[in-house]
Amino acid sequence: MGSRSIASEDRYEQVMELAKRRGFFWPSYEIYGGVAGFYDLGPLGARLKDKIIALWRHYFIRRHSHIVVEIETPVIAPARVFEASGHLEHFTDPIVECLNCRRKFRADHLIEERLDIKAEGLSLEEMTRIIREHNIRCPVCGGPLGEVRSFNLLFKTTIGPYSENVGYLRPETAQGMFVAFKRVHEVTRQRLPLGIAQIGRVARNEISPRQGMIRLREFTIAEMEFFFDPEDPWHGGILEELLDRVSHRKLRILRTDAKAKGIDKPEEYGVREAIEEGIIVTPWLAYWMAVARDFIMELGVPYENMYFEEKAPEERAHYAAQTFDQLVKVSRLGWVEVSGHAYRTDYDLSRHMKYSGQDLRVFKQFKEPKVVKKRVVIIDRAWAGRTFRQRAREILEAAQNLDPDEVEKILRDKGFIEVAGVKIPAEHVKIIEKVEKVTGKRFIPHVAEPSFGVERLLFVTLDYAYSEKDGRVVLRIPRRIAPIEAAVFPIVRDEKLVEIARSIWWRILENGMYAIYDDDGSIGRRYARVDEIGVPAAITVDYQTLEDNTVTLRDRDTWKQVRIPVDSVVDALRRFIEGADITELGKPIE
Amino acid sequence: MGSRSIASEDRYEQVMELAKRRGFFWPSYEIYGGVAGFYDLGPLGARLKDKIIALWRHYFIRRHSHIVVEIETPVIAPARVFEASGHLEHFTDPIVECLNCRRKFRADHLIEERLDIKAEGLSLEEMTRIIREHNIRCPVCGGPLGEVRSFNLLFKTTIGPYSENVGYLRPETAQGMFVAFKRVHEVTRQRLPLGIAQIGRVARNEISPRQGMIRLREFTIAEMEFFFDPEDPWHGGILEELLDRVSHRKLRILRTDAKAKGIDKPEEYGVREAIEEGIIVTPWLAYWMAVARDFIMELGVPYENMYFEEKAPEERAHYAAQTFDQLVKVSRLGWVEVSGHAYRTDYDLSRHMKYSGQDLRVFKQFKEPKVVKKRVVIIDRAWAGRTFRQRAREILEAAQNLDPDEVEKILRDKGFIEVAGVKIPAEHVKIIEKVEKVTGKRFIPHVAEPSFGVERLLFVTLDYAYSEKDGRVVLRIPRRIAPIEAAVFPIVRDEKLVEIARSIWWRILENGMYAIYDDDGSIGRRYARVDEIGVPAAITVDYQTLEDNTVTLRDRDTWKQVRIPVDSVVDALRRFIEGADITELGKPIE
Repeated sequence: MGSRSIASEDRYEQVMELAKRRGFFWPSYEIYGGVAGFYDLGPLGARLKDKIIALWRHYFIRRHSHIVVEIETPVIAPARVFEASGHLEHFTDPIVECLNCRRKFRADHLIEERLDIKAEGLSLEEMTRIIREHNIRCPVCGGPLGEVRSFNLLFKTTIGPYSENVGYLRPETAQGMFVAFKRVHEVTRQRLPLGIAQIGRVARNEISPRQGMIRLREFTIAEMEFFFDPEDPWHGGILEELLDRVSHRKLRILRTDAKAKGIDKPEEYGVREAIEEGIIVTPWLAYWMAVARDFIMELGVPYENMYFEEKAPEERAHYAAQTFDQLVKVSRLGWVEVSGHAYRTDYDLSRHMKYSGQDLRVFKQFKEPKVVKKRVVIIDRAWAGRTFRQRAREILEAAQNLDPDEVEKILRDKGFIEVAGVKIPAEHVKIIEKVEKVTGKRFIPHVAEPSFGVERLLFVTLDYAYSEKDGRVVLRIPRRIAPIEAAVFPIVRDEKLVEIARSIWWRILENGMYAIYDDDGSIGRRYARVDEIGVPAAITVDYQTLEDNTVTLRDRDTWKQVRIPVDSVVDALRRFIEGADITELGKPIE
Repeated sequence: MGSRSIASEDRYEQVMELAKRRGFFWPSYEIYGGVAGFYDLGPLGARLKDKIIALWRHYFIRRHSHIVVEIETPVIAPARVFEASGHLEHFTDPIVECLNCRRKFRADHLIEERLDIKAEGLSLEEMTRIIREHNIRCPVCGGPLGEVRSFNLLFKTTIGPYSENVGYLRPETAQGMFVAFKRVHEVTRQRLPLGIAQIGRVARNEISPRQGMIRLREFTIAEMEFFFDPEDPWHGGILEELLDRVSHRKLRILRTDAKAKGIDKPEEYGVREAIEEGIIVTPWLAYWMAVARDFIMELGVPYENMYFEEKAPEERAHYAAQTFDQLVKVSRLGWVEVSGHAYRTDYDLSRHMKYSGQDLRVFKQFKEPKVVKKRVVIIDRAWAGRTFRQRAREILEAAQNLDPDEVEKILRDKGFIEVAGVKIPAEHVKIIEKVEKVTGKRFIPHVAEPSFGVERLLFVTLDYAYSEKDGRVVLRIPRRIAPIEAAVFPIVRDEKLVEIARSIWWRILENGMYAIYDDDGSIGRRYARVDEIGVPAAITVDYQTLEDNTVTLRDRDTWKQVRIPVDSVVDALRRFIEGADITELGKPIE
């Protein structure tokens, strides 16, 4: 039995062919000629995606359920949200139109392809100038190109029957977490740190999407906004304890400085080392990168085929102070980004505070109350009582909230101040120094964000799972995320064997796993059919079953078989899926 | 200890208050003043929804995994899809504008509220006339109302940079299944019956959404298009075997005839009886209604608080030949639709065949080939060979596909026919009768569709789970769908107890369940906190744990406690969640 290594180009074609033929995914709207940037997930793809999401939840949410919660917010948001987030202004690509055929192109891609230079970060004017100077023309009809303009990638719509109520489809789930932060923080007992995760649909109106499942106009994001105190990111022992779990991990990192020096090989850093040396500027970003590393490896990606690339300032999104892309090597396409890790600082919450007028700060209690000196504006109490009667108290309080420096200046200029709508002459105003006990302070949390494109993970998983053995395909999807856990076969279509096989099949289903029952064709062909779609375990009922009530359990990857009692099939299957070696589960067959 | 029954109005308020305070759900975009028709799911709501979806999958997909698959298709679709499906034409609500303040209203609702008559199914002209005749005016400013117009409920957008590429957000997931039917049928070995299920986001641009979580502009649908052979819906023994599983079920049905006679109480039918008496016109619709009944009951809805209402022709969607709404009684809002069961016939596939030009029929092999007589158009082979050389074969074959009646008519009129672009004079054309063996036939499958609104199920679940005991809230969410399976408490914050409790908590998480660890406040308060959010099991580590390595397990609903060994906590918890009585799991405490 020989496994065969497959050239990268071939492998890509074979994975795509298998995906279509066996029902992992295919281009959407095929019968209408397709629409670029949309893919359907078929029966196996939808199950695989579900399993990948469950694994992500396990790594990012369940294992952190003392500090991370999951929410769900709408895909459609009112325009105000993306004004605040900066997406209306910044979430754009440069576009250029052919003045002859009216086709439209990504200007930066066109320049990069024609001139083999980097165009990311160039201004629209610069790109227009380059196109003119190098006489770059329409790649389809050869016509002249117009000015480079900015094209916003948000899908636009209208909410309700009034055309002025513009809405957009979210391009990331993140804004849902920022807008709901105050509420989520409240219902989770106002603690920090707080991770708010979301797994959901997003849409980006790419100008001309390519690369199959890699660049889609609509896809699923699994991401987390992790809110922490920038003055005390360690939050007592919380981060320390979590870092202990991953501190023996190495991260392969390609830094911006290194790239600037022409280095394109990532270097290895311990997680703590990367934090201590300031390579990753905030420790939570580093922690979640370490979790991301483990998660991606569990999809079947070897350590050496993955690294984190730091993005240069002009490559980063508008909200990020530092960003790393997690790259994985795949067939044909080369290094592909599977996740982004952005230090979003307090950018988003600050913007939403400004645009909503709501206070989104959190309150942090000091361990000990602090005594601080403070200058305050005081109005003569007796005079105010006589003059304003019932309103006196309100006016005295309002005065205390005024800025003393400001008040001094106004008094110098005008000889009076206005408080709560009334004039107070200078002689009744005093500015005194007051000693106050302060029990805490309000601040805007900072955010570290790990963000994954789920369809890319699905493609990566298939790409790494694809293998050939004895001239046929064996899809070595890691057992824990295999779309279908088991296949159950009667060795021949004998009524007694069929009955037992069907009852085993039903028991597996009732226990929350998926299984295929198949009695059609030779047993070899049936094994081959389920190997090809990555079913880790095949259970076969044969004539010996009628004698000793055992069945065979076969491992997809080694083709080894053991005999196990019918009654323990569900348990054995569970242990096998969780990673047990097949030889631990029963008596090997020769 | 007394449970208290709660008036329906109060209960609704209390459920909504709890949902917001403890984080099940709240209106989206609160900090921006909210946008009607959008809700966020908070940490508990998102988990509960996930559990409800898992249960739906179990009932509708996993238990039918020999005939049902799940897929995922995009939310955005090109206009052509909704032209074909009829949604561009039919998916509308009547709207009327105030000529004074320019506010817009649902015309039918306005008429119904003012005149207390049924307006569903009235034409736009009739509604305009009624508004005029009864002088119905703007409910806000009292101004005059304009003509009633039709408002399409699809959210509109543009796909890519060309403004003519109109797209819409899907209002149901169904069209994804119809458009992909051919491909899915192929990858599932071309069998019928075939259920294609999908759980996903949909959007409906309601004119003025009300009723909290019940009428949303964006929500999640769980639905299935079940394709079957209308000439042989029983498909050998497949339906028979499934019906056996549910044949003892009764369905409460309110029929259209009964309603016409003024009856508003549903009648009871056995599932088979409803099929045999033609009350449900196609058996698969009946079968899935029976499954829907079981599923809804498992959410905690008693049999008598649920029935199926048959919709009159004017109440049905444009694609349906028969429709039943599954109604559940909830607090304040009364009877609410939680699912729809539509017999969509071959409507959708026929339309997509017509609009795409693709053959979406399936091939059905006859048990025995049939011999049929058939008239075919024949061209003189020798003449054609001489005249058309290499093209002869193509022309001969094309002729055989022509309609003989049509050809006869053309020959009479013109004396020649055109085949594959060439003229054939009448003397070289013959129409003969041919005897053919036919091995099967092509036909368009029919469809039965069960379709659920997931957010409504979430609300229904909470509404039924809400209870009060000893003056505080106990949320009796059925254990299998509880958002958090367990809480783990050290009885006091003693270092040794904390360590054990935390290790139990971690073990539960690693085994795929959610658990809360809490050591803050009195044990009574902690029990109360988790009762209120429906955590079924509380595990407490106390000083006895240090002696005999056991902990207490407490049942949320009965407040009974048993002692169980620390090592078997995960197993006991699993069994408890699956429905075991707490007294089966360990030694009762006094």
